[in-house]
Amino acid sequence: MGYWFQPNNQCDIAISSRIRLARNIKGVPFPFKMNAEQIKQINHQVRDAIANSDNSLAKKLKYIEMENIPEIERFAMVERHIISKNFALNYQNRAIIISDDESICIMLCEEDHIRIQVLESGLQLKKAYETANAIDNILCDSLDIAFDERLGFLTECTTNLGTGLRASVMLHLPLFEANGGIKKYITNITRMGFTIRGMYGEGTKPLASIYQLSNQITLGITEKEAIEKTTKVAQQFIESEKEYRNQLDTLRIEDRCMRSYGVLKNARVLTSDELMSRMGDIMIGISLGIIKNIRYPMAIFVSAQPYMLMRKYGEMSPESRDIERATMIRSLL
Amino acid sequence: MGYWFQPNNQCDIAISSRIRLARNIKGVPFPFKMNAEQIKQINHQVRDAIANSDNSLAKKLKYIEMENIPEIERFAMVERHIISKNFALNYQNRAIIISDDESICIMLCEEDHIRIQVLESGLQLKKAYETANAIDNILCDSLDIAFDERLGFLTECTTNLGTGLRASVMLHLPLFEANGGIKKYITNITRMGFTIRGMYGEGTKPLASIYQLSNQITLGITEKEAIEKTTKVAQQFIESEKEYRNQLDTLRIEDRCMRSYGVLKNARVLTSDELMSRMGDIMIGISLGIIKNIRYPMAIFVSAQPYMLMRKYGEMSPESRDIERATMIRSLL
Repeated sequence: MGYWFQPNNQCDIAISSRIRLARNIKGVPFPFKMNAEQIKQINHQVRDAIANSDNSLAKKLKYIEMENIPEIERFAMVERHIISKNFALNYQNRAIIISDDESICIMLCEEDHIRIQVLESGLQLKKAYETANAIDNILCDSLDIAFDERLGFLTECTTNLGTGLRASVMLHLPLFEANGGIKKYITNITRMGFTIRGMYGEGTKPLASIYQLSNQITLGITEKEAIEKTTKVAQQFIESEKEYRNQLDTLRIEDRCMRSYGVLKNARVLTSDELMSRMGDIMIGISLGIIKNIRYPMAIFVSAQPYMLMRKYGEMSPESRDIERATMIRSLL
Repeated sequence: MGYWFQPNNQCDIAISSRIRLARNIKGVPFPFKMNAEQIKQINHQVRDAIANSDNSLAKKLKYIEMENIPEIERFAMVERHIISKNFALNYQNRAIIISDDESICIMLCEEDHIRIQVLESGLQLKKAYETANAIDNILCDSLDIAFDERLGFLTECTTNLGTGLRASVMLHLPLFEANGGIKKYITNITRMGFTIRGMYGEGTKPLASIYQLSNQITLGITEKEAIEKTTKVAQQFIESEKEYRNQLDTLRIEDRCMRSYGVLKNARVLTSDELMSRMGDIMIGISLGIIKNIRYPMAIFVSAQPYMLMRKYGEMSPESRDIERATMIRSLL
């Protein structure tokens, strides 16, 4: 386990895997109807359930109240994919239970009472699920989780009813994209019960050719089946991307990667959008063995996000961020 | 004296100065009316005039018949501004008298019987003229040069009648250009008896913001006056360019220079046009002290021209040249 953006293996098409389980406590209204007192009660119930567990996984987790986290850090957590943007905005009375390496994070009273999230680098949905499931078991053992024999786990939104499981894979698909593949397959993907969208989730545009593939079906399917199916679809994307890569004009692609490398290593002003697109080129370069001295492109990518920058260098105007970003990238490359 | 594209001082706005004197021998038709025998006679007359002179300058000059120069080298000489393109194309029976460092080159039977050219780096028209004049004196002493008391030196084209002198300065004017200056001043420049055109002379488009300023008036003016006037106009351009440079947003210009540097240092495919435009940025960077490790940008610029490349690496398709050019530039920077 470790940071999702620092894979041990070299960056490849599958960047990271994410499992999210939505759970609620029986007899308590959903968060959008709760008052501050009720929210705090849930927070403490879940905190205690973890604290009182003998499971070694539970020992790794820390309870943190969101009001103790400064604004910049809250949004930097969104950029690191640890919490949702809505949760960062509506942080009052909220709390999280999180592991040191941030691979496990439980959001309390977001859309549901409990949202367990596990992140892994690469295509490791099964591994991420095993961790999420272990935490789920700890909670189910000591809390009265809302479960219906016919429907499965009860959730605030009907799209999560059943398993309450969302399995997502972050994929780097520059050549699939360049060949018009994403648009072409989107109807098919939807029909198969999946969605594919930008790196920062719903409504965000795909940057640097990074896409999130997620399962949509939670009813009439087991958690295991959902994970196997998502893994299979992700593998199909990976295979297509690999095929496109094999058909490449090596010289042109090398030229493109190295130009982007040269710009990043020398630019004095760098917007977040340009960085993303250039890092996309760098990532192709790494996966084709053209660029060898960059180990964690996603770490660079994430650490240059606006709030991640401000977390490190203090509050800044967008213009100053573009300069600070360029300086940081030059020193990182 | 030295190669015009290898100035001793750092590259600045005035890249190089050129003096050209047009002379003809009395009683002999102009080159366009001459047969092979007559051309050879002129060649030998001028060759002997130089060979028989005791002047130390004459000792530095070498007579070369153009038929002994391979095609690629002929056109590479055009790229180095040593001979005209017309002369490289119509090289049969032609000859040149040239110094080792190529700063002096006499074309024989180009448009006129004798065209003395002297190149200097920077703004040094006076120095270039002194050299050209010394050669002119050597030739006038031993040859019967066509001269009319009223008109001055007689030339094939009436635009050269009088002094037969063309003084040119190659100027790097990126900010003048960016501010719309060139177009705005072109009428004024013409009215004052000057032309301004692209780096490779008449009909060529300005690349990398490099312009050639030349005097047009050869009648009713002394050679010295013409040189002083051209120097003054060149200085006005230099002052304007400097003023624009002082008004610059330093960060943006540094960003632009360094990005171009990064691209040149990493690209795998590089067209001649892109190189020129990027080298233009590099030259601004050098003159502003942003880029310190490139000493001779014009030498890089010239050596990456198509024929200069083929002269070094053998005949190639344009596609192969773009690759070879990128490789060469990477190793030069």
